Amino acid sequence: VIGPPRAAVVVVGSEILLDARQDTNGPFIEQALGGEGYACILRLIVGDHIGEIAAAIRTALSRAEIVIVSGGLGPTFDDLTREACADALGVRLERRADIEGVLRERLRRRGLTPPETVYRMADVLQGAEVLTNTVGSAPGQFVAGPPALALLPGVPAELKAMLPAEVLPRLRVRFACAPPLRTVLKIAGLYESEVEARVAPLMGAWTGLESTILAAPGEVTLILRAAANDAAALERARGDVRQALGEAIYAEADEGIEIAVGRLLLARGLTLATAESCTAGMLGAMITSVPGSSAYYLGGAVAYSNRIKEGWLDVPPDLIAARGAVSEEAAASMARGVRRFSGSNLALAVTGVAGPGGGTLEKPVGRVHVAFAAPWGEAARTLNLPGDREMIRMRSCRAALDLLRREISRARGGAPA
Amino acid sequence: VIGPPRAAVVVVGSEILLDARQDTNGPFIEQALGGEGYACILRLIVGDHIGEIAAAIRTALSRAEIVIVSGGLGPTFDDLTREACADALGVRLERRADIEGVLRERLRRRGLTPPETVYRMADVLQGAEVLTNTVGSAPGQFVAGPPALALLPGVPAELKAMLPAEVLPRLRVRFACAPPLRTVLKIAGLYESEVEARVAPLMGAWTGLESTILAAPGEVTLILRAAANDAAALERARGDVRQALGEAIYAEADEGIEIAVGRLLLARGLTLATAESCTAGMLGAMITSVPGSSAYYLGGAVAYSNRIKEGWLDVPPDLIAARGAVSEEAAASMARGVRRFSGSNLALAVTGVAGPGGGTLEKPVGRVHVAFAAPWGEAARTLNLPGDREMIRMRSCRAALDLLRREISRARGGAPA
Repeated sequence: VIGPPRAAVVVVGSEILLDARQDTNGPFIEQALGGEGYACILRLIVGDHIGEIAAAIRTALSRAEIVIVSGGLGPTFDDLTREACADALGVRLERRADIEGVLRERLRRRGLTPPETVYRMADVLQGAEVLTNTVGSAPGQFVAGPPALALLPGVPAELKAMLPAEVLPRLRVRFACAPPLRTVLKIAGLYESEVEARVAPLMGAWTGLESTILAAPGEVTLILRAAANDAAALERARGDVRQALGEAIYAEADEGIEIAVGRLLLARGLTLATAESCTAGMLGAMITSVPGSSAYYLGGAVAYSNRIKEGWLDVPPDLIAARGAVSEEAAASMARGVRRFSGSNLALAVTGVAGPGGGTLEKPVGRVHVAFAAPWGEAARTLNLPGDREMIRMRSCRAALDLLRREISRARGGAPA
Repeated sequence: VIGPPRAAVVVVGSEILLDARQDTNGPFIEQALGGEGYACILRLIVGDHIGEIAAAIRTALSRAEIVIVSGGLGPTFDDLTREACADALGVRLERRADIEGVLRERLRRRGLTPPETVYRMADVLQGAEVLTNTVGSAPGQFVAGPPALALLPGVPAELKAMLPAEVLPRLRVRFACAPPLRTVLKIAGLYESEVEARVAPLMGAWTGLESTILAAPGEVTLILRAAANDAAALERARGDVRQALGEAIYAEADEGIEIAVGRLLLARGLTLATAESCTAGMLGAMITSVPGSSAYYLGGAVAYSNRIKEGWLDVPPDLIAARGAVSEEAAASMARGVRRFSGSNLALAVTGVAGPGGGTLEKPVGRVHVAFAAPWGEAARTLNLPGDREMIRMRSCRAALDLLRREISRARGGAPA
């Protein structure tokens, strides 16, 4: 085989195809295999149908040296992966007395007398190793191959425990493979096309590197990949990108801006409060999604109504009458007000038109003002954001955190203790 | 063919397999095809590799009567679906002068002179119909088959416009199929296992029906499916479920509880304010994710610090000293305070331990108090919620909205205008 070992993933679950349930097992397995240096080429998702599962496993085995199957190992009638796999491999299932004994004992202790069919969980493919499940009941199975084939339960907590503990070590002894090097740079304050325009001219000089640019509302992710023995090239490329993007890079790790901002606040010993109109709490929820954020975040106001803007945040009614609640002046006043009241060092405010209704010629949907207040000064930005209501709100939150990050960095040592 | 036509989806995009980007096109296509009555049996996800794309399309064509391919139709070197598809079908690509002319004119008007390779977007499979793309540049393609095969761009906005407008009508004239009947019931205030325990005994009497129970933090979804000519059976089953679950059913449509609550508030002409500690704005953000929510939502406080709880919400410092900020009394006081200050008819408050730190023997991680205040009375609930930080916070928000919903329903006509 030229290049790294190829891997394919088979995910079993009708609810994914019929009810639009998100498949989280596929991405988890692929990230783990990619981290080992294996090349994930294919994911197949099939329903709980024995013929389709068998066909998917056959396809996977024909394309890859490593096949991981998730789901369909439980005790109910629609758990059919064992039988489908026996069919695909042309081997028999053998009831394992030791596994059956453990299951019987466990069920007896819980006072349960389930139908005999639950002991299908003790049926193991001829020649397969049994993989221990420390989280749930259904054991996994491993066929050395080639191709190597692992069957894992579909319950995410069980899969996440068993893949690294039971499967990856068995693959490592079979497939010598140096994991590729990977760098993630996270960028705020630029659109994907702006990042692309600045990075594309650099790429000609990057031999042997792969790069990917991915966009989410208010953040861009740049991923650089190099072979295991090419750390120097990766480091050079990283330096090129740092120079091209400058302070737009908020992290050199795959993390949200709320994490980078939290670290910055902790390091400087600064506290933060928020005043939100159109985002209505989304900014506070994002900041506090980080465990330990109570060390720097004090809270604030969801100032949807003018009464809250005026009563709690001291936004002058005259200002709202003259400039409107959606204005840079209102945002600045909200930030000032929440800072004064909460006693925080720093404050952020957001006001805008998230849509789909409420837009005017003068203030269209997507017009958002973010404002920052600190003991050493104030700053504000007026944005015209694309996307639907939720995208505009998400972009607004990230733009506010980006403003905070840039203003703190700009202030350097100037921040008071 | 026995049963409904079988459909398979091929999603092209390396970022899904390599970078754990979520595939949203697959579920969108499957939901649309399912709504037509077609049976989705398989989704294949492949990277931007011509051989893998061709193999995936061949597999899909061998298993299904309908194949939809998304992605890889753009202008760049890694857009390879056209060529892969020609290979899989054993037909040639023909450059279409009319499409090329439109592309040239459009790019000229924008002052762009891209490399000639962008006109690969005008390459069409021999015998294929061209599908109009009103959102972006890359046209789609449709091969009548059998099997029927449609190629669509991977940009979600383009795919979402083109599938219903260009593909489904062409499938309808080829595949006569009565869409199945489907009922969705959304449930709050019960765990999945509780719903299952109440619904399972009913299922014996449901002949010819399929049911699925799905869980997300703080909500359970029950889906009932019947053949097109079996409306009566579906109606009977729906009645059975209504009786078994009662007021735990918050909607008979696939919608979040924030939408059901918004409708209820609008219908009663009631306004709402919120005071949030551990959810820190997530509840406000959830309520305002509904367009038009400013008609009933006034805002409130993110009361992360005690200073905000005491200063804005009038929570007595003695109460916090005696009972703690995480207590049913504190939640009730926060709801009362935000209602009084904002001038709203109703108020919700949330306080709790979201973890992972901060738990004690007396108040462990997952302990959450939600409180409701209205002119006609108050109510509160103490919850012990499972899951990680984000799950506990999400469950807390939905539990608060569920408390509101039940208390308004209980009050019936008793609510003041």
